[in-house]
Amino acid sequence: LGTACRIFLFFGACLSFFTPCCYGGNILVFPVDGSHWVNMKILMEELHAKGHNLTVLRSSTSWYIPEKSDLLLYQYFFQTFLDDQMKAERDGDSTLTFIQNNFRLVSMISNAHIIWVDVLSNVFDDEKLMKKLTDAKYDLLLTDPAMGIGVVLAKYLKLPLVLNVRWITGGDGQFAIAPSPLSYVPSPGSGLTDKMDFFQRVKNMLFYGLQLIQMKYFIEPHYNAICEKYFEGGCDIISLLQEADIWLFRSDFVFDFPRPTMPNVIYIGGFQCKPAQPLPADLEEFVQSAGEHGVIIMTLGTLVNALPTEVADEIASIFAKMPQKVIWRHIGNRPSTLGNNTMIVEWMPQKDLLGHRQTRVFVAHGGTNGVQEAIYHGVPVLGIPLFFDQYDNLLRLQERGAGKIIRLNEINSQSFEQGLNEVLHKDSYRENMQRLSRLHRDQPMAPMDRAVFWVEYVIRHKGAAHLRTDSYKLPWYSYHSLDVLLLLLTVMTVLLLATHAIIRFLCCKSKRKTKSK
Amino acid sequence: LGTACRIFLFFGACLSFFTPCCYGGNILVFPVDGSHWVNMKILMEELHAKGHNLTVLRSSTSWYIPEKSDLLLYQYFFQTFLDDQMKAERDGDSTLTFIQNNFRLVSMISNAHIIWVDVLSNVFDDEKLMKKLTDAKYDLLLTDPAMGIGVVLAKYLKLPLVLNVRWITGGDGQFAIAPSPLSYVPSPGSGLTDKMDFFQRVKNMLFYGLQLIQMKYFIEPHYNAICEKYFEGGCDIISLLQEADIWLFRSDFVFDFPRPTMPNVIYIGGFQCKPAQPLPADLEEFVQSAGEHGVIIMTLGTLVNALPTEVADEIASIFAKMPQKVIWRHIGNRPSTLGNNTMIVEWMPQKDLLGHRQTRVFVAHGGTNGVQEAIYHGVPVLGIPLFFDQYDNLLRLQERGAGKIIRLNEINSQSFEQGLNEVLHKDSYRENMQRLSRLHRDQPMAPMDRAVFWVEYVIRHKGAAHLRTDSYKLPWYSYHSLDVLLLLLTVMTVLLLATHAIIRFLCCKSKRKTKSK
Repeated sequence: LGTACRIFLFFGACLSFFTPCCYGGNILVFPVDGSHWVNMKILMEELHAKGHNLTVLRSSTSWYIPEKSDLLLYQYFFQTFLDDQMKAERDGDSTLTFIQNNFRLVSMISNAHIIWVDVLSNVFDDEKLMKKLTDAKYDLLLTDPAMGIGVVLAKYLKLPLVLNVRWITGGDGQFAIAPSPLSYVPSPGSGLTDKMDFFQRVKNMLFYGLQLIQMKYFIEPHYNAICEKYFEGGCDIISLLQEADIWLFRSDFVFDFPRPTMPNVIYIGGFQCKPAQPLPADLEEFVQSAGEHGVIIMTLGTLVNALPTEVADEIASIFAKMPQKVIWRHIGNRPSTLGNNTMIVEWMPQKDLLGHRQTRVFVAHGGTNGVQEAIYHGVPVLGIPLFFDQYDNLLRLQERGAGKIIRLNEINSQSFEQGLNEVLHKDSYRENMQRLSRLHRDQPMAPMDRAVFWVEYVIRHKGAAHLRTDSYKLPWYSYHSLDVLLLLLTVMTVLLLATHAIIRFLCCKSKRKTKSK
Repeated sequence: LGTACRIFLFFGACLSFFTPCCYGGNILVFPVDGSHWVNMKILMEELHAKGHNLTVLRSSTSWYIPEKSDLLLYQYFFQTFLDDQMKAERDGDSTLTFIQNNFRLVSMISNAHIIWVDVLSNVFDDEKLMKKLTDAKYDLLLTDPAMGIGVVLAKYLKLPLVLNVRWITGGDGQFAIAPSPLSYVPSPGSGLTDKMDFFQRVKNMLFYGLQLIQMKYFIEPHYNAICEKYFEGGCDIISLLQEADIWLFRSDFVFDFPRPTMPNVIYIGGFQCKPAQPLPADLEEFVQSAGEHGVIIMTLGTLVNALPTEVADEIASIFAKMPQKVIWRHIGNRPSTLGNNTMIVEWMPQKDLLGHRQTRVFVAHGGTNGVQEAIYHGVPVLGIPLFFDQYDNLLRLQERGAGKIIRLNEINSQSFEQGLNEVLHKDSYRENMQRLSRLHRDQPMAPMDRAVFWVEYVIRHKGAAHLRTDSYKLPWYSYHSLDVLLLLLTVMTVLLLATHAIIRFLCCKSKRKTKSK
């Protein structure tokens, strides 16, 4: 009963799903909570509109509905981690804080996986649920592999697997699936670009090493017990990921640096973007009142509870000096220095504001969704990265001259004002961002249509095995051809030594002859 | 004058091109002759229909119009080479013939490049032509990089570059542009699949080594003189290829094995395929007269002048025994054993016959175009590979159970009859081929539309630099991170030695103390 209470089948509640239609597929979804759910929901709405039947499997406790459950424990870990990270970001980037941060990150991720594996074990042990899932004869399982649960479940139910992915259990999915030469593919979190000098490449390799260690020692082992218990011959989480039929990757090469990819990776970056809708009347009035100066909008995302007071005050005082109007999504105390031109809101229609002609600059933390939306609408970004991939995301804009990064520990009235004015008044920022926007919008097919096409493709063909390589089944030394190189080197060495020996033998013989003469 | 006679601008003659339209691009095309030209022409017709202005730069002597020119010399090399290759294929696969064949291939390719570089030099020296090309202000250069000329010309004219590519100057373009782990990416010509045992992987690496040597010592050097003469700081042919904006690759992953790829590689395999048109009345009558048994069609491509008489006789005698009707594109003497059911033709509407309901089996040499068309129409293949990539192409069908290979040296009446009956009567061949056909046809966008889209994309955005990596500019040891690994190994060694030294020092000290006590 405890299990049944923790996990339940979610038929039809959230998106008014209907029963399977004659032409629709039968899709089982295992989403991840938080901003990941936002992405999954958008894709699901589209699939639903196409007539597919969707079943969402999720914890009975969602992120924002506090009830006693294991997942809440995870939320607690996570929130503490976020608070620590922001403090570290505020304190600055010393080697010590860097090491501490990474240690915290690894420990947070490791703990999360322990909980997820526990949830998974509960799911498998719930015979009633498992029978329901087996009997439903789904066409495929759609999951976000930031958690491993959906991936293992697909294997157990023998279902084709489609990933809606930005990150996998242990880091960047691209690293797991496609060759990633460290000379031009920056490791996630390294803060590097695709153009690195020698020492940056050393840093990149060290970062990659850290991620390998994390994966090998802090993530994979958690899954081993469950793999041995429920799968004949065991399993490992990375191989399960590599078995996925299609990766719907929430990125593209207008946003990210060019890198090798695999045929079963479909880039759907910006798939959530749509033309802006009209604003509510009061907001539209406020925005129009800015006149020729236009509007600045600011948000640091949904994960941040509150900015440090002194930072909020500094930002507010700069905003107060600007001729622009400002819309600021800010949680926490009202800054004492707030100007009349600044409207503080708890929520704002971000996409519609980004698509508004009056919007001049987007002050943002650099979450993937926000950055993609800024690209879509061509609004330059002043970025204040806080955690995870946010610095890396913003770096991609900065490298293209479409955004500027200002670190939390560098924020003071002067630096923030300077940064803001630079992005506002230097034309190149807007020009470059609009160039990215043009490139992003110029695709043979809208990213969302592409996503739906490939989900339906997997339903039609019961998988897409021909698009993925089976090379992950090779041992690592074979994959990298080290065994072959060893053989060839050995043969060459033997040949060289033999030649040497023969020459020596012949020389000695002729010398001896000379001597004997 | 001699140069002007050898190379001329080809305005409008072959495809009735018209003057640039208001919205059309201005495209310079440097094609390769032979079957490559067939592919380029189809793409050009489509671009022309979209309103683009196309200028074709080609030798005044085409492949089949013998006039005295350097290219004829190449044709002579080529024909001699083909005859030798076919003889070798007939004689069988001894190590000696294998080495001889490869030596001939490398020597043929090397000689061809010497001629091409000479042609290129003539083009560059022809001031009138070069002025015409510069003044025309093309939007891009479209070329087939099987020859290097177009690629170097694009650099000289500073034009965005789009490749219509199956092979590059020195082998497989994929190897030049994307990481190709030799553990699961078979080298071209190796006759290997994506699943290799240890010794196959050794073979694969040796093949790759041969190709590197060919590229490095038999192709690149030919271009060095011209690179130094016409380009500040020189150039190298492989880097020029890697600078291309878009690779329209005449392959896909229904046909080829899955492998890493780059974002600027667009797969257009089968872009030439179209639904079948009705056959000429007499051919239709012949085909229908086959009744329930259906029709076998056979062609060994346009490169083969004539099959050895004894082989042709054997094939004809088997065809004579079959209840099917046979349409055989055969050049040379009429086989003495020809049956009444076999129609010999000099040319046949291959696509329309492949798309005909009566067609049961395609006996073919395995050229890329024919294999793609067989996939499109779902007709299983009995393959008799002769040269180049033909064995590899057919191997891809055989691996999927959609075709069977029979080597020229294995052909006798028994083996050919057995092979033919197997492909005719074992249902799995047709089923597997029709599965490939379904997969090939199930794409979000037709390959030809994709090709046109990306050509126009490069025109609209003046290139597609954001889709390609600049990593080719790194030295090879940096690209493979060998310098970084060396540093890290050195640091680790020093640390280990230092630790060892310290421990020894401390031990000795304590020993000495013990002794002195």
